[in-house]
Amino acid sequence: MISEKMKPFMANNSAIRAMFEEGKRMAAVYGRENVYDFSLGNPNVPVPQVTEAILDVVKNEDFMTLHGYMSNAGYEDVRQTIAESLNKRFGTNFSFKNLIMTVGAASGLNIILKSILNPGDEVIVFAPYFVEYNAYVRNYDGNVVVISPDTETFMPKLDEFEAKITAKTKAVIINNPNNPTGVVYDEATIKAMAAILEKKEKEFGTSIVLISDEPYRELAYGGVEVPFVTKYYHNAVVGYSYSKSLSVPGERIGYVVIPDEVDDSAALIGAATIANRVIGCVNAPSLVQKVIKYCIEHEVTVDLETYEKNRNLIYGALTEYGFTCAKPDGAFYLFVKSPVENEKEFCEVAKKHHVLVVPGSSFACPGYVRLAYCVSYEQIERSLPAFKKIAEEYGLCK
Amino acid sequence: MISEKMKPFMANNSAIRAMFEEGKRMAAVYGRENVYDFSLGNPNVPVPQVTEAILDVVKNEDFMTLHGYMSNAGYEDVRQTIAESLNKRFGTNFSFKNLIMTVGAASGLNIILKSILNPGDEVIVFAPYFVEYNAYVRNYDGNVVVISPDTETFMPKLDEFEAKITAKTKAVIINNPNNPTGVVYDEATIKAMAAILEKKEKEFGTSIVLISDEPYRELAYGGVEVPFVTKYYHNAVVGYSYSKSLSVPGERIGYVVIPDEVDDSAALIGAATIANRVIGCVNAPSLVQKVIKYCIEHEVTVDLETYEKNRNLIYGALTEYGFTCAKPDGAFYLFVKSPVENEKEFCEVAKKHHVLVVPGSSFACPGYVRLAYCVSYEQIERSLPAFKKIAEEYGLCK
Repeated sequence: MISEKMKPFMANNSAIRAMFEEGKRMAAVYGRENVYDFSLGNPNVPVPQVTEAILDVVKNEDFMTLHGYMSNAGYEDVRQTIAESLNKRFGTNFSFKNLIMTVGAASGLNIILKSILNPGDEVIVFAPYFVEYNAYVRNYDGNVVVISPDTETFMPKLDEFEAKITAKTKAVIINNPNNPTGVVYDEATIKAMAAILEKKEKEFGTSIVLISDEPYRELAYGGVEVPFVTKYYHNAVVGYSYSKSLSVPGERIGYVVIPDEVDDSAALIGAATIANRVIGCVNAPSLVQKVIKYCIEHEVTVDLETYEKNRNLIYGALTEYGFTCAKPDGAFYLFVKSPVENEKEFCEVAKKHHVLVVPGSSFACPGYVRLAYCVSYEQIERSLPAFKKIAEEYGLCK
Repeated sequence: MISEKMKPFMANNSAIRAMFEEGKRMAAVYGRENVYDFSLGNPNVPVPQVTEAILDVVKNEDFMTLHGYMSNAGYEDVRQTIAESLNKRFGTNFSFKNLIMTVGAASGLNIILKSILNPGDEVIVFAPYFVEYNAYVRNYDGNVVVISPDTETFMPKLDEFEAKITAKTKAVIINNPNNPTGVVYDEATIKAMAAILEKKEKEFGTSIVLISDEPYRELAYGGVEVPFVTKYYHNAVVGYSYSKSLSVPGERIGYVVIPDEVDDSAALIGAATIANRVIGCVNAPSLVQKVIKYCIEHEVTVDLETYEKNRNLIYGALTEYGFTCAKPDGAFYLFVKSPVENEKEFCEVAKKHHVLVVPGSSFACPGYVRLAYCVSYEQIERSLPAFKKIAEEYGLCK
């Protein structure tokens, strides 16, 4: 009954699902308070102004305007509001025509990849990376080419990147700030990537699309700047989601930006708009599009301090206990070196101490584990003795 | 820049888009009141209880529960509520496990097709049909096999259906009530289709999935019953959308039902759930899932009388003027025989009278045009003199 393409997803899914089930089982046995689940990237900080926005649009918009069909690209007024906000923040020059509202960033990546990939085309990603990219590229019979991780800095290995670009390279996906490392690619890095891409485009006579997946853009700490890629490279597109900045991942709302500078820009905008319909989304959910407009006009974002406090607490404690990890400048993840080579073994040991983390092999980077610190400050506090015991068990403590 | 697979969609899209642009242009020139646009299936009857539902869930649900991630299949309580409602109405025996919440019916069809189609598999459809099915099947490299229309009754031609089922037939899509004809397949028809499918499954040793696309299920008039396919055939799945029954097409909310009786049911449910994530939807929008639960609990549906009144007015007038069309028992469309063989020519003549309709060739059934009567009663009243003049121009009047 099941198609050949779906079978590998089902096998992999079972492994991750087993971990979630284990978390539920443990919570039932030991009590939810005594299980420290750092496995999921589900935001935990409510944004009350989102509720105000919902009440406002329900009150002020006509029913059929608010809930009816609009262009497959989304409401023009919403797209124009976002365009102007980006222009103000990043000195860009977008209009609503450059924006397509999407069912989260995941659909955004899919409509871009559907629009540009022919079977056998290559898409470059940098380990560690969000493994769903594999699925998105395979949806269109593309092949993922992985650049190995620089485990010192978790910045992209540019030599390997340059060497692996071929005539078949159609796209490059970066995720900035990064899941799972929390690292932010700085301006120098983006400029260097752009120079390599331009050189290779000339060499092969091709167009290579740099896709920047940016659901964590607003989650950067201590004044760190996340460069806006379209300013540095002509064939750059941005996929965004409000899941993290407004704590609404369930609502599936985001957008794609395709600048005029992109090769065949009008055709790509047209194709991506049609792809939004063809893949079955039709359009981004309508009410929440209007909610986004309200939130931009009222400058609403999640309270970053909560995540920054969490980061400082857990990063400080873990490094004090002897764990090794790159200091995350953004997102809400910590990518910690496993004290033993096989990090799945480490995950099992952590589990004995009621700590749930995700093995790095799920991000194409074995030997590490990912902690999602989008949990309550109290959960982190309660979990620290467990982390200390784990560190002691491995003889990490100084 | 554009992938080969997207190119044909772009060519076709331009033709339809041109018509919409023409409608806008005409409204600007002649005034919106004087242009009779019957081209779009966008509901026009607000459902005020949906607004009450939104206010209720925003008030009573916890922020992160309402807007956070849930299972890729949707909230269990919402799915259970729908399952129980179906069981009560149709005597079925579903639990939440048989339901997957989807980003409208379009995504529902996509996750089913993604789950079952291998390249070269055949999917049977009955002309006239919603042409987006072509795109959904091509997304997974399947081939659409079209059964020619019975232009007397617009019921499926069962002899041709039986003859065209092969060892490669993986699925059959029906749309009941039908877009664009408004015809409802009755119980005898569904039973006959089921008997043919069972015979062919035995003959070829295959599983053939009957997919019933039912966004218009609640829009049936005069006590006409729309049979629930899973009661008549073991490999039947249902794709549903609330777009029409709650007038919320922009919200992208629907579900898929996969009964336990389907071959490899658990695997198919698992695959479709993962496919929801893999195609980029991740889950159906969260707030509106809870809105659906409220609406079921409060027995909310659109006021059918409005559409039925529209149907009676336009069907009565057009047949009186001499036009020929099957009386629609459901949906909000009228499929009218063109007075000339080339219905595109007829569309142009209608346009001169400021009447906008869609050519049947867009539904794989040339020689006919589709009118969407989900417009105001007043628009229909205002448009009748134009229809009369068109009838006179073609010498149809008796």
